[in-house]
Amino acid sequence: MILLRHGESEWNATNQFTGWVDVDLTAKGEAEAKHGGELLVENDLLPDVLHTSLLKRAIRTSQISLEVADRHWIPTKRHWRLNERHYGALQGKDKAATLAEFGEEQFMLWRRSYDTPPPAIDNDSEFSNFHDPRYAGMPPELRPQTECLKDVLERALPYWYDEIVPDLAAGKVVLVVAHGNSLRAIVKHLDKMGDAEVVGLNIPTGIPLLYELNDDFTPVTVGGRYLDPNAAAAAIEAVKNQGKKK
Amino acid sequence: MILLRHGESEWNATNQFTGWVDVDLTAKGEAEAKHGGELLVENDLLPDVLHTSLLKRAIRTSQISLEVADRHWIPTKRHWRLNERHYGALQGKDKAATLAEFGEEQFMLWRRSYDTPPPAIDNDSEFSNFHDPRYAGMPPELRPQTECLKDVLERALPYWYDEIVPDLAAGKVVLVVAHGNSLRAIVKHLDKMGDAEVVGLNIPTGIPLLYELNDDFTPVTVGGRYLDPNAAAAAIEAVKNQGKKK
Repeated sequence: MILLRHGESEWNATNQFTGWVDVDLTAKGEAEAKHGGELLVENDLLPDVLHTSLLKRAIRTSQISLEVADRHWIPTKRHWRLNERHYGALQGKDKAATLAEFGEEQFMLWRRSYDTPPPAIDNDSEFSNFHDPRYAGMPPELRPQTECLKDVLERALPYWYDEIVPDLAAGKVVLVVAHGNSLRAIVKHLDKMGDAEVVGLNIPTGIPLLYELNDDFTPVTVGGRYLDPNAAAAAIEAVKNQGKKK
Repeated sequence: MILLRHGESEWNATNQFTGWVDVDLTAKGEAEAKHGGELLVENDLLPDVLHTSLLKRAIRTSQISLEVADRHWIPTKRHWRLNERHYGALQGKDKAATLAEFGEEQFMLWRRSYDTPPPAIDNDSEFSNFHDPRYAGMPPELRPQTECLKDVLERALPYWYDEIVPDLAAGKVVLVVAHGNSLRAIVKHLDKMGDAEVVGLNIPTGIPLLYELNDDFTPVTVGGRYLDPNAAAAAIEAVKNQGKKK
């Protein structure tokens, strides 16, 4: 199984909280997606099936990287359960301004704590999912108004078990193109990370992360293997400093 | 239901027979796909589900037009049964040279007759699908070495009945992005056209063709309605003259 976090989005670039807001990739993000596809080809890891979220930055990353790998034709499933963490009322806000307004302790609690969600978003907000037709099939109680990582794990796990695991059981090479926090949730589950331990986990954008799995769907190697380990290590350092930009 | 033929491909532009060869869109083809998406928006026809072939020119047309319509997230199914007609040994050949070599009568018979396929392609040909991983799950007897329109209709109908009709029965707005001949086959079926009549049917690229359907999946209006009827009429004239280019 290969996990791939989408490339840089418009709001990564402008340092805003994004969550379920459907922003596009930047040109840099498109280049990252292309490079992700090249790494798949170089490592002879050609996906048989794609799982992705309902958000454009993940969908386009998958389209670009699979086209480079000549796998644009593979079966594709998309689901909100792979969406980014819903950032609640922070969606659309500038990260540096939020840091200045609420202080580093509160800021890091919202960003990194396992079980403290930000304040809920108002359904009338322009950044709410309440009127988005792609979620029209979800009953109101299922639509998040905010999420912590624990919430993401709980809503992503049914998709992992019901949609991804059967493909793995069938022997397929599975590509999951998703988001920082939905991938952190899957990795926490796979690697059996503790709630405190996952706080320090960062997944870089655009670098495929390979998990070879045993018959019981546990990882052969805890943590998996990035297809470009040096770039991944450098990017993980950079992500740690994100939000501290002035 | 909306039918959409992919925009201009590289081999449309160079006047070569394409069939199952997986060529990309040209810049003009991308612009056509974008315009197709704009026509969907202008007519408030937002698809709930996409069906497309396994070929890049149809897949990319669907991606571009759906992104314009902000429907990049809808469920997507792809299948070889929606592929272009397999052009047999003609795949890769220049249309004008083929016309010169075989004469207009034979040429038009291969291009337009309902039930005369071109000569079969050799499995060793670079333009054969024999070693293409996307068809690895098809037993050899299912993989075409050549097809006439009758063959296309026979292999497309099971997909129509088993995958598209259930979506229509569920009340969904269905978008089918496919190819000149796989769409001609579907239209022949819908409009109950005779074998002789379908010979004169041309479907232009990039202009969505809307079919409103009755409860029994027959068209409310035979022939449907192009979302840009003037452009469609002009394009149909132009297609008729294709292959006669010097």
